[in-house]
Amino acid sequence: MGKRILFLVGPEFEDIELYYPLYRLQEEGYETIVAGPSRDTLPGKRGYSVKPDLAFEEVDPGEYAGLVLPGGRGPERIRNNEHVKRIVRGFFEDERPVAAICHGPQVLISAGVLHGRRATSYPGIKDDVINAGAVWLDQPVVVDGNLVTARIPPDMPMWMREYIRLLRA
Amino acid sequence: MGKRILFLVGPEFEDIELYYPLYRLQEEGYETIVAGPSRDTLPGKRGYSVKPDLAFEEVDPGEYAGLVLPGGRGPERIRNNEHVKRIVRGFFEDERPVAAICHGPQVLISAGVLHGRRATSYPGIKDDVINAGAVWLDQPVVVDGNLVTARIPPDMPMWMREYIRLLRA
Amino acid sequence: MGKRILFLVGPEFEDIELYYPLYRLQEEGYETIVAGPSRDTLPGKRGYSVKPDLAFEEVDPGEYAGLVLPGGRGPERIRNNEHVKRIVRGFFEDERPVAAICHGPQVLISAGVLHGRRATSYPGIKDDVINAGAVWLDQPVVVDGNLVTARIPPDMPMWMREYIRLLRA
Amino acid sequence: MGKRILFLVGPEFEDIELYYPLYRLQEEGYETIVAGPSRDTLPGKRGYSVKPDLAFEEVDPGEYAGLVLPGGRGPERIRNNEHVKRIVRGFFEDERPVAAICHGPQVLISAGVLHGRRATSYPGIKDDVINAGAVWLDQPVVVDGNLVTARIPPDMPMWMREYIRLLRA
Amino acid sequence: MGKRILFLVGPEFEDIELYYPLYRLQEEGYETIVAGPSRDTLPGKRGYSVKPDLAFEEVDPGEYAGLVLPGGRGPERIRNNEHVKRIVRGFFEDERPVAAICHGPQVLISAGVLHGRRATSYPGIKDDVINAGAVWLDQPVVVDGNLVTARIPPDMPMWMREYIRLLRA
Amino acid sequence: MGKRILFLVGPEFEDIELYYPLYRLQEEGYETIVAGPSRDTLPGKRGYSVKPDLAFEEVDPGEYAGLVLPGGRGPERIRNNEHVKRIVRGFFEDERPVAAICHGPQVLISAGVLHGRRATSYPGIKDDVINAGAVWLDQPVVVDGNLVTARIPPDMPMWMREYIRLLRA
Repeated sequence: MGKRILFLVGPEFEDIELYYPLYRLQEEGYETIVAGPSRDTLPGKRGYSVKPDLAFEEVDPGEYAGLVLPGGRGPERIRNNEHVKRIVRGFFEDERPVAAICHGPQVLISAGVLHGRRATSYPGIKDDVINAGAVWLDQPVVVDGNLVTARIPPDMPMWMREYIRLLRA
Repeated sequence: MGKRILFLVGPEFEDIELYYPLYRLQEEGYETIVAGPSRDTLPGKRGYSVKPDLAFEEVDPGEYAGLVLPGGRGPERIRNNEHVKRIVRGFFEDERPVAAICHGPQVLISAGVLHGRRATSYPGIKDDVINAGAVWLDQPVVVDGNLVTARIPPDMPMWMREYIRLLRA
Repeated sequence: MGKRILFLVGPEFEDIELYYPLYRLQEEGYETIVAGPSRDTLPGKRGYSVKPDLAFEEVDPGEYAGLVLPGGRGPERIRNNEHVKRIVRGFFEDERPVAAICHGPQVLISAGVLHGRRATSYPGIKDDVINAGAVWLDQPVVVDGNLVTARIPPDMPMWMREYIRLLRA
Repeated sequence: MGKRILFLVGPEFEDIELYYPLYRLQEEGYETIVAGPSRDTLPGKRGYSVKPDLAFEEVDPGEYAGLVLPGGRGPERIRNNEHVKRIVRGFFEDERPVAAICHGPQVLISAGVLHGRRATSYPGIKDDVINAGAVWLDQPVVVDGNLVTARIPPDMPMWMREYIRLLRA
Repeated sequence: MGKRILFLVGPEFEDIELYYPLYRLQEEGYETIVAGPSRDTLPGKRGYSVKPDLAFEEVDPGEYAGLVLPGGRGPERIRNNEHVKRIVRGFFEDERPVAAICHGPQVLISAGVLHGRRATSYPGIKDDVINAGAVWLDQPVVVDGNLVTARIPPDMPMWMREYIRLLRA
Repeated sequence: MGKRILFLVGPEFEDIELYYPLYRLQEEGYETIVAGPSRDTLPGKRGYSVKPDLAFEEVDPGEYAGLVLPGGRGPERIRNNEHVKRIVRGFFEDERPVAAICHGPQVLISAGVLHGRRATSYPGIKDDVINAGAVWLDQPVVVDGNLVTARIPPDMPMWMREYIRLLRA
């Protein structure tokens, strides 16, 4: 289990927020697995795309060392999915490392796992993160327990540095 | 004052959610005023556009009989604006009619006016509406006091029917 | 029959010129039926779309209280269709209300129903309307008997106000 | 004068219907001059563009051996321009060769020069050509006196063959 | 054989660089045949398209009087295809006329036929043409034996004039 | 000097091939500097963009520990620039680490630094790399002295792993 990382992705994901952590974690030696609403190819906002390895319903979160939630418009399309909520909660139950960026925390809100956490996000959803019970911080990366959040693409270097540190811990 | 309606619009608004209520209220005899982050022309998601009559900072909410909040990606871009919050609260203080659709309720969340209300929205932000203290209902239009909310474009006929009824009351 | 309104739509229709009257007439309590070259989904110029309820060949114009002809590039694609001509003439035979906007009057030209009428249109086809025997007027809306024409989207409030008045008469 | 050919072009011209005859006539040894609403660069429908050499108001039609009217959406945008009408009529007064394709004949309709002519065009404006007094023929190229018309891009080889024959006569 | 001209085309060809010589040679009385990776429709860079008559593997170069290689991004996609190389070499074996423009010479490089030739191309691949053994000249059209090359679309009138002269010789 | 990395970028760069190494090297603690034809913002192929820190003419290659050449259409636009050639040669003179991917090696070809090297690239320019004197290998990453080349985005994890190893050596 230790070397597999799961990505939850929906249509119109922010292209670079999927591919930076995906390639970065591959570089670090992890196997990356992408799950989507189905196994059909998903378009990114900018024209890149990804073919999911698995549909959400096929995912057993216990098989992965960590979870990554990219941003864009994908999170809004998948946050109400019951399997997505089940998967996210699975990672929080035993505090395995979760990374979310930009709109990715919308998925965390719907999974109900932000209460009492320090976190950041795309500033446009700041109030939603706060209303979900989190303390929202305007900084490039926020680490709180197993959760590593960031705001926007230029935060990604710091975001992945912290996330990988956590995975290795 | 009785015949002027204010629209709060940000870039990449959902084109038809601005223009349906705008033309509809004009048809009904209202003067419509569009406010934006500045007076610079704003692009819609689909390629229509609008030239604001006013910047947010120039708006005195007391001069308008009602407020309309279209959806799309505009609300996320303007919801943190202090003038936007001030304007929205102005309408709620004396319960003048407010219509919001799709992502428009994001602006209501940030203005802090949803607590204890029944409302609807684009389903993708349902949990954010709930976390803001509202009761979210999955129906085409929800009327609660001065607030008339709807989910998606096909709800607009019912949405405007209720909103106009409220304006005339 | 009294409550059904027919729309004739072709590919690359002007999105808002279909959806404003469609939602508006629904709001007024009418049932709206969209007919196209086939029942295949039609794209609008801007990216909205519509799934026709009927193909032109399936339409019996006697079943509808009124007809609406949106603009865009759709009219040019459907004006040579024999069923379209048959349907339009059906409404003019007993003077049931017809609304056309922008390039919509191209369909009226091909159906041969403009002779001796006062009408308006998108200014770029003014001479074609005149050559079809009409008196072209540069005003937001022109009502002549059962025919209500307008030029461009900002005319729609006045256009629908007059059209609905006619439907109710 | 004998070697200069004028093109009248509006925004969103059909790219290939400008550039095929333009390059073709250059190949034949003609100097090509493009006139537009102003000297500002005009976009084609597909993304090519052209920088006009002259604004319509600067054009003296007596200085050119022939005229070309490309199609696309440009003709509709320029057909009401008084200078355009004046220029077109100048070529018909002494029967100098005029080539028009697709929507190009819309300009001929507004200039009032089609009466009694045999011509063709994009099929979507057939009835407008007929109402302008022409006999419309469904064939790749129609030559009637100084006028050479065609329907769509694949007709261009025959269209230019006939037009060049006329220019040389 | 004398009247058939072959075009080798790949996806995202430069639209006008296919259609100018295609229509031009048709105008001159040649039959034009388009070959592609398969018989599936190929998109141009700008939105035009072409349906190949043949797949590369079906082509016998001995059946054609000449070859045309348009530019754009197509050449890069087809230059490694073994059938493309075979076809190009077929034309050079007995010095039948070959026209290439813009990125078209990329195909000549991979076919290994540029050594010792004078040629031109899109300036961005100048060094690749030189490294393939050619003398690169910065002029609108370069004729060397059976090979006629050009740089960019505005060179096409001179390019086709020389190519047709060669075909007729 | 040891911690600064230079990127040479032209318009329509392959977005992810700029941003993956840029963020990756930042994560590793390097300062990244982007140079372009001027300091004007450059568009990526997919819609991301970058504002160069320097124009090519301002760059002293001696100030940087390494060089990165992203792919896309940018390399073709900048490879003929004399400053680009000067800069690239500066890195090869004392064998400081250079990373190139996809079309990035086009810049190496024009700088004349590939002779006798083992390298890879986007397969569509393989023959150009070979003609420039290199041995082309079809593998995800090729390291030869100070040069680290890769083919396409999925090779980036291995590409950066090797490049960083070299930078640290």
